[in-house]
Amino acid sequence: MLEHFQVPDSIAVRVKPAHLRATIEQIFMKMNVPKTEAVTAADVLMFADLKGVDTHGVSNMLRAYVQAYNEKRLNPRPKLKIVKETETTAVVDGDNGLGIITCPQAMEIAIEKARRYGMGAVTINNSGHAGAVGYHAMMAAKQDMIGWAMTGGGNAMVPTFGAEARLGTNPIAFAAPASKEPFFLFDAAMTTIAGNKIGLLRRLGRPLEPGWVSLADGTPDMTGGQQPEFEAGSVRMQLPLGSTRELGSHKGYALASIVDILCGVLSGAAGFDTLDRSRRGHFVAAYRIDAFIPAEQFKQTMDGFLGTLRATKPAPGHDRVLYPGLPEYETEKVRSQKGIPLHPEVVEWFKGSCAELGIPFKLTSK
Amino acid sequence: MLEHFQVPDSIAVRVKPAHLRATIEQIFMKMNVPKTEAVTAADVLMFADLKGVDTHGVSNMLRAYVQAYNEKRLNPRPKLKIVKETETTAVVDGDNGLGIITCPQAMEIAIEKARRYGMGAVTINNSGHAGAVGYHAMMAAKQDMIGWAMTGGGNAMVPTFGAEARLGTNPIAFAAPASKEPFFLFDAAMTTIAGNKIGLLRRLGRPLEPGWVSLADGTPDMTGGQQPEFEAGSVRMQLPLGSTRELGSHKGYALASIVDILCGVLSGAAGFDTLDRSRRGHFVAAYRIDAFIPAEQFKQTMDGFLGTLRATKPAPGHDRVLYPGLPEYETEKVRSQKGIPLHPEVVEWFKGSCAELGIPFKLTSK
Repeated sequence: MLEHFQVPDSIAVRVKPAHLRATIEQIFMKMNVPKTEAVTAADVLMFADLKGVDTHGVSNMLRAYVQAYNEKRLNPRPKLKIVKETETTAVVDGDNGLGIITCPQAMEIAIEKARRYGMGAVTINNSGHAGAVGYHAMMAAKQDMIGWAMTGGGNAMVPTFGAEARLGTNPIAFAAPASKEPFFLFDAAMTTIAGNKIGLLRRLGRPLEPGWVSLADGTPDMTGGQQPEFEAGSVRMQLPLGSTRELGSHKGYALASIVDILCGVLSGAAGFDTLDRSRRGHFVAAYRIDAFIPAEQFKQTMDGFLGTLRATKPAPGHDRVLYPGLPEYETEKVRSQKGIPLHPEVVEWFKGSCAELGIPFKLTSK
Repeated sequence: MLEHFQVPDSIAVRVKPAHLRATIEQIFMKMNVPKTEAVTAADVLMFADLKGVDTHGVSNMLRAYVQAYNEKRLNPRPKLKIVKETETTAVVDGDNGLGIITCPQAMEIAIEKARRYGMGAVTINNSGHAGAVGYHAMMAAKQDMIGWAMTGGGNAMVPTFGAEARLGTNPIAFAAPASKEPFFLFDAAMTTIAGNKIGLLRRLGRPLEPGWVSLADGTPDMTGGQQPEFEAGSVRMQLPLGSTRELGSHKGYALASIVDILCGVLSGAAGFDTLDRSRRGHFVAAYRIDAFIPAEQFKQTMDGFLGTLRATKPAPGHDRVLYPGLPEYETEKVRSQKGIPLHPEVVEWFKGSCAELGIPFKLTSK
């Protein structure tokens, strides 16, 4: 499945992580983003590209971010404002900054609250795209906390029984540390596939599989074979996780609704009452593990839990059973060594952008 | 779908809610459960039966609870012990009490913490079956809070790519209030269908549908037609929400893992490192809404949000689009008036149990 969305080895250009990171930082700084925030933004994108979450790495997202800055749709120098605060909670106005910059700042607030009181949660309104929300959840996990991160908004998902897209793909991320095992890290859209995967498929010229989108009248397409290009515009009507009512799509639809409630209704962000297409909000939370049980006990139990899952006898046609975060960890090890595979078209975009912005192009140097 | 699991009207015996409630209370008291806790236990069961969550009402659960008390596997008079506590968190030892009694008590603690500090979360170890976890989440929602409740344990779900059941059905519940709209209330297993539905199907003599269970070798059964009786024992290998990797079963598997982590690893309950079949833990949490935004603003936005979802144009073959909690609200209205439909076999069980315990049998009186 992962391979399904990856750039084929035959055409992939492998770039060194350090070169890619430096280039991203410089692009953000050319967008008038301060150095510290440019470093954070690059770190969020590199997190995705290193872990194989190509939907949320530079290929799909960076050019959209650059375009938004160029069109003055994003504030490159946001000053986060705390609208409301208690010991454990805060609502933050993101000052129209990019979410990959505002969410880590909000998570820092949540972590500090959790450090003092056991738990912390922050909702963020007036903020742009959140990137791979697993990044924000992992910030907490690295501090021996449990991390949650979600982002809601947009109309990409058709509710169960519905014929109109009403909810976003609304990803949920959850991260927790182990001792010897790699971190447990879940980060996934509550549609059957991430929205950006449709963009990847378009670039790769591949058709949609059964259960991913509805037909134009809302009926779940359980046959597949449709092309990612959609008559009605760039966004397909994606099916909730579960695809059909019989397979549990009402659960994917409900989980996506929970994301809208926590990110949007609970942040006071605009447009969540009418499900306006442009609405957006984020939610991050941290639970300090040793506010419950000793962190070392938790992490050792996690080692057993994750190790037992990995040791599950595999079904025919499969080598082994994975757990969330394990393949991403393994991909990161490989890509750190061998480089990040980019589509030649993406490399060309970098070349053009670097020339335009006056940044030395080093991606393909040895 | 709901009808699929319901007792056919032609054979259903409709009983008055007040009669059923009084009978349940008396049965619990005969089990040596104190009056106050017996009232709570009956309220949790009635919550399920009134809302049409028949999997977690008297038909499936009550006889199992009675059997466990009779076999001395449950403590009828548990004294909850707080093992660890901070301003916002607690770990509770349930003293081997039934979860439908310990979870509401734990949620009271979480609500009190949220009232003072904005958030509260309590994990529960050494506790029996949690019942319909939506009940516990709703306790918070009725206090203008967001409520979470989960219960983890047991081996019913086969992980993606696996050939052995490793995780429970691991339900997640989430509740939030609206102003004029019925509460948003999600409560669902992270398998494609609730485990108890297999028991209901057995009683109703109906086959399994595609995507619900795996074959004996772990391969997802996407054909259906198998009988609920399983050669290997009473528990089938159920598929995670998403059914197959292509449809997103790794997400249902991950969500179920999160439930095990929060309920089990974070509560210090026994057996979560080895995924022992008998392991069990619960998790409840409350977020006070006005620690974020004014509760009235939240509830009015919820009205718009839920109303907009309801107003979604329906797909062919469907009258309307629902949201989580709406059908349950409507069922409760009908059943409060017309009675709760029970299978004659269940009524017979009540008759026998009442005779045995010396309780007057009033279920079928007018």
